[in-house]
Amino acid sequence: MNFQVKLCVAAALAAASALAAAQTSSVTVFGVLDVGVQRLKNGNKTLNLESIDGMQTSRIGFRGQEQLGGGLSASFHLEGAIGPDIGSGGDWRRRATVSLASKDAGEVRLGRDYTPTFWNISRFNAFGTNGVGAASNLVYGFDGVSGTSKTVIRSDNSVGYFLPGGLGGVYGQAMVAAGEGSTGRYVGARVGYAGSGLDVALGLSETTNNAAGDKFKVFNLGGSYTVGALKLLGLVHNSKQTTREQKNWVVGAHYAVGSGIVRASYVNARSRNSANGEDYTGKLFALGYVHNLSKRTSLYTTLSQVNNSRTGRFLIPGGSAIALGDDSRGLEAGIYHSF
Amino acid sequence: MNFQVKLCVAAALAAASALAAAQTSSVTVFGVLDVGVQRLKNGNKTLNLESIDGMQTSRIGFRGQEQLGGGLSASFHLEGAIGPDIGSGGDWRRRATVSLASKDAGEVRLGRDYTPTFWNISRFNAFGTNGVGAASNLVYGFDGVSGTSKTVIRSDNSVGYFLPGGLGGVYGQAMVAAGEGSTGRYVGARVGYAGSGLDVALGLSETTNNAAGDKFKVFNLGGSYTVGALKLLGLVHNSKQTTREQKNWVVGAHYAVGSGIVRASYVNARSRNSANGEDYTGKLFALGYVHNLSKRTSLYTTLSQVNNSRTGRFLIPGGSAIALGDDSRGLEAGIYHSF
Amino acid sequence: MNFQVKLCVAAALAAASALAAAQTSSVTVFGVLDVGVQRLKNGNKTLNLESIDGMQTSRIGFRGQEQLGGGLSASFHLEGAIGPDIGSGGDWRRRATVSLASKDAGEVRLGRDYTPTFWNISRFNAFGTNGVGAASNLVYGFDGVSGTSKTVIRSDNSVGYFLPGGLGGVYGQAMVAAGEGSTGRYVGARVGYAGSGLDVALGLSETTNNAAGDKFKVFNLGGSYTVGALKLLGLVHNSKQTTREQKNWVVGAHYAVGSGIVRASYVNARSRNSANGEDYTGKLFALGYVHNLSKRTSLYTTLSQVNNSRTGRFLIPGGSAIALGDDSRGLEAGIYHSF
Repeated sequence: MNFQVKLCVAAALAAASALAAAQTSSVTVFGVLDVGVQRLKNGNKTLNLESIDGMQTSRIGFRGQEQLGGGLSASFHLEGAIGPDIGSGGDWRRRATVSLASKDAGEVRLGRDYTPTFWNISRFNAFGTNGVGAASNLVYGFDGVSGTSKTVIRSDNSVGYFLPGGLGGVYGQAMVAAGEGSTGRYVGARVGYAGSGLDVALGLSETTNNAAGDKFKVFNLGGSYTVGALKLLGLVHNSKQTTREQKNWVVGAHYAVGSGIVRASYVNARSRNSANGEDYTGKLFALGYVHNLSKRTSLYTTLSQVNNSRTGRFLIPGGSAIALGDDSRGLEAGIYHSF
Repeated sequence: MNFQVKLCVAAALAAASALAAAQTSSVTVFGVLDVGVQRLKNGNKTLNLESIDGMQTSRIGFRGQEQLGGGLSASFHLEGAIGPDIGSGGDWRRRATVSLASKDAGEVRLGRDYTPTFWNISRFNAFGTNGVGAASNLVYGFDGVSGTSKTVIRSDNSVGYFLPGGLGGVYGQAMVAAGEGSTGRYVGARVGYAGSGLDVALGLSETTNNAAGDKFKVFNLGGSYTVGALKLLGLVHNSKQTTREQKNWVVGAHYAVGSGIVRASYVNARSRNSANGEDYTGKLFALGYVHNLSKRTSLYTTLSQVNNSRTGRFLIPGGSAIALGDDSRGLEAGIYHSF
Repeated sequence: MNFQVKLCVAAALAAASALAAAQTSSVTVFGVLDVGVQRLKNGNKTLNLESIDGMQTSRIGFRGQEQLGGGLSASFHLEGAIGPDIGSGGDWRRRATVSLASKDAGEVRLGRDYTPTFWNISRFNAFGTNGVGAASNLVYGFDGVSGTSKTVIRSDNSVGYFLPGGLGGVYGQAMVAAGEGSTGRYVGARVGYAGSGLDVALGLSETTNNAAGDKFKVFNLGGSYTVGALKLLGLVHNSKQTTREQKNWVVGAHYAVGSGIVRASYVNARSRNSANGEDYTGKLFALGYVHNLSKRTSLYTTLSQVNNSRTGRFLIPGGSAIALGDDSRGLEAGIYHSF
């Protein structure tokens, strides 16, 4: 190498090494801001809102990964919800975990995390778990109104295990979460297969949900199939505890049109309580359109309607109280921006 | 290009592209830490404090912008107050917004944000809205003591519009904020002109401030004029609701001396309530000096005195309770550091 | 310089200058995630937990420094605790400070910060102040159960001064913290010497701890000596207020084994109250091993036992209530990851 090349390589390396110093902490800041306007009608009462999280939950997070050699890595993930309508935020209750992972043996993850059974609700619904059209408006808990297990979405005090990649499309995870002398002990797992446009997964869990030791049990099975511009989604999600039971099934579709996606979903939910004879049904119909301005930014609108049977009380949350059997309607439009 | 040049250009590009990867999220972390010591005297009661926010409010924030092509951009801004004296913080109630902006058509902004009428109070006072000398110590609300509309500074649930640049010095913004079935519906606007050392702006707003539908109304008109080392500032700010009314006028000046600025302000505030005959006046005199150690770091000191008429109860906040007609005095010195 | 070299140096400089722009804010994000599992036995009651902070307290922080020229610099430090087991966080109560420092004259620091007297507890214990083996489980406060001064670890409203470097191994700091009309006025200092493997320091403080003006007084003296793979640590820590007094002494050791460290500690604490004749003793024995996967990531396990005299009530916190004289036992294993 002659002097000239040495000189310029030195200059380039100086720039690169300054960069390396700047990158030492290798922390990624990420997040979502999602705000819109919403009109909710429960029975004959209407409420206009500045709404949030119509596409995805507003959030801020920090994450990073360290390579330890030999295919081993350590990583962390901190993520907390933001309420941009009122400027709320401050905790890390969306996820706060530390992981040790091996390329061959999989990942052990400790902290507050999503439960395995949550993912089928999120992944196999056309509207995920956000906005007026989300199947979760009905699917979460028994009836969308009364108390539900706190492990439907996430669990405190969890130890999770995730299968490694490279298993021919099979994926899976299991979680146990300590009750710590109180209620909330969770045991659950999810196993699935993804390949050739198909994605299917089965989830099962059991949570010790009260001091009496009653178990809140969840079973779900979901799938999606993508062919060209069309993605079809389906889910069965059942939960029960002592005399109460809720059975849900959901079908949905995404259809890509230019730089946008048309989304549609139908949810059927039936809630029963053998202790008092309660037995009612709710149906949610949702139709929406997402216009992608870029990979990070979209405009969206969704129209959704919940029809209850005579004694039903399913609803789109956020509006006025609902009378038994009333319908619930929601229309929203907003902007989603991620960073 | 010969081999040697190829080699070194490749090295330089490798450094540059590693940088590009590091910048992907393009999030800027920013903030202020501002801490000092303060001596407050209300009537004959004195209190010594570690004070904060004498120059600017301590804060941390994250912001970013994405170019969408065709002059369109999306951006977000998250900003929350910090109390470095006690380590408080955690929300984003200073600002939590997402925006879609066009170079030609202006910006639409959703979330929690400053009200248009706030900016005249902030921009056209020699001490902004911070520290013992701030005109806002008197100007905010009706009398600095009793309940005021929550939209004097910011509003939840807002949709704002900002005029684009390139209008020959004219600037402006408007905001509507949803009451969401409760109180707090805000409608307001601000329009101004800046050029040739002059900056003037007019603000108007109306907030539905209680369940009875009473309107809290704000009018303000402010301006500044810079000539050489001297900047003169002036503001008229009036607010009223049903039988209560407060009228304020403020004059002030900045004078650059070497790497520092001398600041002076005089505030005259009159509060009246036709329901009970209350009618009193407060006057604030403030003098201060800011020594800039750099663009990001300053040392400052401010001396301020509030004189009340016989039944007045204006004061510099943070100290002991005040008796009607008592004076309020404050002296502070601190360090301001931004990042 | 010929054309080829000019070209490649230009490319290198472009990369470097893009980097400089990216670094403008010069803010460092840092933190710790530390989660494990713990088994606590108080008397005959056992509790299994997902534990946190066994090695170091989980946290996130932001810090930065600005060179002002002439050896002067301004800096800030924001740091808040995280509870990854439940996703808690949001304040900056670990530290929230702004500093002005001179290479020759030392540093003035304002805000919420560690008290000088804390550092001897932290630095001269084999387990620092974290986990089941920490001497602080006994040393903090009078008896580890009843109310203690809030300045044992940190103080609000503080003004601190730190000696500059380059004093031949002598280091030191002093702090005063405003009571602000309430309790909590702290005055304290720490001075030490570090060199040739030796590190010793003396700390003294006095806090006005209640409305009656009673003083909470702390004295401590600690040291460590490193020779080869062995580090010996020792501490005397005494605190008293009116009729109550606690005297503690601690010895410990670190022994480096390959990429790991064996840690051992013994604590002797005696608590007395002349008002009611209380007089009891607690002893803590702890043994642990830290396996370093890298500088940033470790696996650890610690076993600890507290033996109380007949009326003692020292314990390892987090488990069941303890009866007088009962023993307390803790076993934990976890992963520590810093970023």
